[in-house]
Amino acid sequence: MTAARTIFFVSDGTGITAETLANSLLSQFDAIQFRQVRMPFVDSVAKARDCITQIRAAAERDGQRPIVVSTLVSPQVAAALREADALILDFFSIFIAPLEAELGTRSTHTIGRSHGRANAKTYDDRIEAINFTLAHDDGVTDNDLDMSDVILVGVSRSGKTPTSLYLAVQFGIKAANYPLIPEDFERNRLPGSLEKYRHKLFGLTISPERLAEIRRERRPDSTYASIANCRAEVDAAQKLMRREGIRWLDSTSKSIEEIAATLIQEVGINGKAF
Amino acid sequence: MTAARTIFFVSDGTGITAETLANSLLSQFDAIQFRQVRMPFVDSVAKARDCITQIRAAAERDGQRPIVVSTLVSPQVAAALREADALILDFFSIFIAPLEAELGTRSTHTIGRSHGRANAKTYDDRIEAINFTLAHDDGVTDNDLDMSDVILVGVSRSGKTPTSLYLAVQFGIKAANYPLIPEDFERNRLPGSLEKYRHKLFGLTISPERLAEIRRERRPDSTYASIANCRAEVDAAQKLMRREGIRWLDSTSKSIEEIAATLIQEVGINGKAF
Repeated sequence: MTAARTIFFVSDGTGITAETLANSLLSQFDAIQFRQVRMPFVDSVAKARDCITQIRAAAERDGQRPIVVSTLVSPQVAAALREADALILDFFSIFIAPLEAELGTRSTHTIGRSHGRANAKTYDDRIEAINFTLAHDDGVTDNDLDMSDVILVGVSRSGKTPTSLYLAVQFGIKAANYPLIPEDFERNRLPGSLEKYRHKLFGLTISPERLAEIRRERRPDSTYASIANCRAEVDAAQKLMRREGIRWLDSTSKSIEEIAATLIQEVGINGKAF
Repeated sequence: MTAARTIFFVSDGTGITAETLANSLLSQFDAIQFRQVRMPFVDSVAKARDCITQIRAAAERDGQRPIVVSTLVSPQVAAALREADALILDFFSIFIAPLEAELGTRSTHTIGRSHGRANAKTYDDRIEAINFTLAHDDGVTDNDLDMSDVILVGVSRSGKTPTSLYLAVQFGIKAANYPLIPEDFERNRLPGSLEKYRHKLFGLTISPERLAEIRRERRPDSTYASIANCRAEVDAAQKLMRREGIRWLDSTSKSIEEIAATLIQEVGINGKAF
């Protein structure tokens, strides 16, 4: 294995955009080992010079020049960083100019816009969505269900909770979730409290084999985790969802991002990605 | 107000990277109204042509050409989309070429790498972090605290829960959180179960005025929410944290992203941003 390359994420804000961008790019070079260094809150020329010192040290240690992915709003700070001997991919300097030309206006060059609290109302709504989602996990309450943007249903351990939290944190979506349990299958009906929110329901299903695997980690050697029981529950849940006309998705080989992207399209929710 | 411009997020995967990047750019043009259209899973030339049809319709309605932010791994699909009459900011075509030159290797051009389940182990670890964080919210259990990456402490409603969930969802960090309550202040000591994890503790504080505001929404006219009580609790919590040598941060005007970025640096955690 060759020595790792160092990649710096430099930002005048949190650096989360820079890191998301960089990880997306690096995932296209999976044979290469990268050492990642975060440098958030670089909001002055002096701090940019500190970065250059660290970039130089990494270059000497690695024997090759580092890569820098940056999101620097200030042209002065960006210019200072360009003195570094590195491949610098500066997101704003590449994309802001064509956008300014297209929109016929100058950008505001304001630091900390995308992950700060620039818009307090939007921010507070998102925190409220996180609190709502947490309070409505696993069907613990029927209160305020009319305030939800979506209600996820599915058998225990089909992926409802991580998906709900992802929707809340990343998109500010109020996502309640409800388990479908053996009693629902016996009655072959939705839990009564959900009937009037049918248009908000979205189902998750999962392969019985994967479900048994996940459940075994929690409760080894239980009926709950047995493949026979998992098959019966998944089958009953799918029958119920089909009968009730609920849209659903198989989560078996999907990430929470993929489930979320599909769900947002299908349910028609307008969340903003943060 | 001028008519809204339409901006399309086009991706062969979830589109979450495209949307995050676009929102970061658009936040620099806050005087302009944008109408956002998500187009995830555009993984064929035929689907790219469907996009072009929608882009044309938006151009006619808006009376100005749309903006397209895209993350298309396939050169064929990207080329097909370039036929659209729009300002196209294609993120991969701009950044991948210089990276290939720098790294002396071709990229893999694999779709769905950054937000899929390409790396099952990393993905499963992250889901486990979400479950761990949820199970360790608000000090509900002392079990497995040694497995945590960080333990947040602070008075009730100082921002611990949203921050913990953000750390788990975005970075795959196992974040427990513990409320500091009047009994802790009376004893002027940390809750006993936390003593041996001092190196993992990170405190949040908040201005008493903002705290009272948040608490009043939950329990109006309560002692809990009174400004006198909030002042006393915040004061006692800060004294306790100072005495115990716990690093802390004022969350009053900070977003969960800003708190997370600072915390990760200070505690020295290696999470990956998703």
